[in-house]
Amino acid sequence: MTDEIRDARTVSASMHGRDRVAHAMGMAIDAVAVGSATVSMTVADEMLNGLGVCHGGVLFTLADTAMAHASNAGDERTLSTTASIEWIRPAMVGERLRAVSAVVERRGRNTIHDIVVTNEAGDTVALVRGQTLTLGGRVTQEG
Amino acid sequence: MTDEIRDARTVSASMHGRDRVAHAMGMAIDAVAVGSATVSMTVADEMLNGLGVCHGGVLFTLADTAMAHASNAGDERTLSTTASIEWIRPAMVGERLRAVSAVVERRGRNTIHDIVVTNEAGDTVALVRGQTLTLGGRVTQEG
Amino acid sequence: MTDEIRDARTVSASMHGRDRVAHAMGMAIDAVAVGSATVSMTVADEMLNGLGVCHGGVLFTLADTAMAHASNAGDERTLSTTASIEWIRPAMVGERLRAVSAVVERRGRNTIHDIVVTNEAGDTVALVRGQTLTLGGRVTQEG
Amino acid sequence: MTDEIRDARTVSASMHGRDRVAHAMGMAIDAVAVGSATVSMTVADEMLNGLGVCHGGVLFTLADTAMAHASNAGDERTLSTTASIEWIRPAMVGERLRAVSAVVERRGRNTIHDIVVTNEAGDTVALVRGQTLTLGGRVTQEG
Repeated sequence: MTDEIRDARTVSASMHGRDRVAHAMGMAIDAVAVGSATVSMTVADEMLNGLGVCHGGVLFTLADTAMAHASNAGDERTLSTTASIEWIRPAMVGERLRAVSAVVERRGRNTIHDIVVTNEAGDTVALVRGQTLTLGGRVTQEG
Repeated sequence: MTDEIRDARTVSASMHGRDRVAHAMGMAIDAVAVGSATVSMTVADEMLNGLGVCHGGVLFTLADTAMAHASNAGDERTLSTTASIEWIRPAMVGERLRAVSAVVERRGRNTIHDIVVTNEAGDTVALVRGQTLTLGGRVTQEG
Repeated sequence: MTDEIRDARTVSASMHGRDRVAHAMGMAIDAVAVGSATVSMTVADEMLNGLGVCHGGVLFTLADTAMAHASNAGDERTLSTTASIEWIRPAMVGERLRAVSAVVERRGRNTIHDIVVTNEAGDTVALVRGQTLTLGGRVTQEG
Repeated sequence: MTDEIRDARTVSASMHGRDRVAHAMGMAIDAVAVGSATVSMTVADEMLNGLGVCHGGVLFTLADTAMAHASNAGDERTLSTTASIEWIRPAMVGERLRAVSAVVERRGRNTIHDIVVTNEAGDTVALVRGQTLTLGGRVTQEG
């Protein structure tokens, strides 16, 4: 395991430890490296919307969380500035969902990420494309 | 109160009653009519991300919920197909946020909505533009 | 006429003088100030796509040009980083189109703009939301 | 060559023959099949903006044209409804650009496409993600 990978895991674990939303949703950080991350979650009853399927905002939150881990893994504070989502198919209670975030391009301090959310069958549930802005300063905190 | 407004409220109440996510987040449907809705929520501890501010996915979920009420208020089942968000400024614990959704344009069964999320000071926290697709069939359910 | 408005016009005229695309399309800069601009154009035969209506890319170019004038009017070099378009209704040969660009929000060096393209009847033809990044350095050039 | 591929080429050629914008810009349809297309173009003097680089609207138009060929190649009339662009790096006069459009997902009559615009060095110049709506009716016209 290289130092960069180890560092990315350390940063990610630090973020995850403080992320109340990710914990409430039972998200797991399956993999992380500088610029990429995989986050998974099982659709629970309390994630349903008024139509009985997983709330579109929950799907977005899963994808956004993956992007946050991918973009902060280098231990430079990074904010999401904009993102768009395409909802492809509904996700049902009990389904295990996985969001994979990857860097598409960097232009200076702005980075573009593509995130794909899939279900257990490998079908695409949602696509997110987002942009982050690297502010600098460390993500991990002392003391 | 016209029949259309009353009907919109009935549909919205029916959706809201079944929306587990909206309830978990303590959302209130402040106003709803065919094509528009106002939804509010207070940022709670469990909505924070790893940086100590309201999770971007939570802000998106609030806006998306407003769009869902606005777009389904005519009692025809309507799905969100795509949406984009611009995060403008962070929201802190204890802040009361309001999302106002309004129809920008309709083209056939596709409708475009603009949603503005503001804080108590009236500052913009996030902007969302989304598209919905009217499938038809009633939102309110019998028995 | 205030100095700021006069300066905005000077910057805009300088940009417009060098914009080959705007000239080829016969665009006119009707109004400009720091953060806002109105650009108009008549749909010509050579702007049609294979379906006989104004090419979607031409509509986008008109809106993008308005955003460029609005965002550079302060005489600081500014780039567009991302934009999205919603095509609402087709534009026909001979129609005079107008794009009005306005700043929605600024967050540091990133600015969000909304641009509305309308036809002579005042109907919306397209909506564009874009983001610009202020790089600094002057837009107007010496000698 | 299968019938489907031959048909896609026929439809595409029919569209291209009527596309005044594509002709004015010297676009070539390098490849087309149902759901995918490659369109190329050389940046000419008249495609420059006020900053001396290829106008962002021209880059968008190239991508949008590729999406139009990909989405209409099945000979069912298809409209673009929304698209977003990320401008990655500038394109200079004389550069040969290529836009490759591919279907990401279909959901009923709405289809999502990703288009990548690259320069001769293979660097990404722009990314476009768009949605089309299949209206039906033939693209190719009689007589």
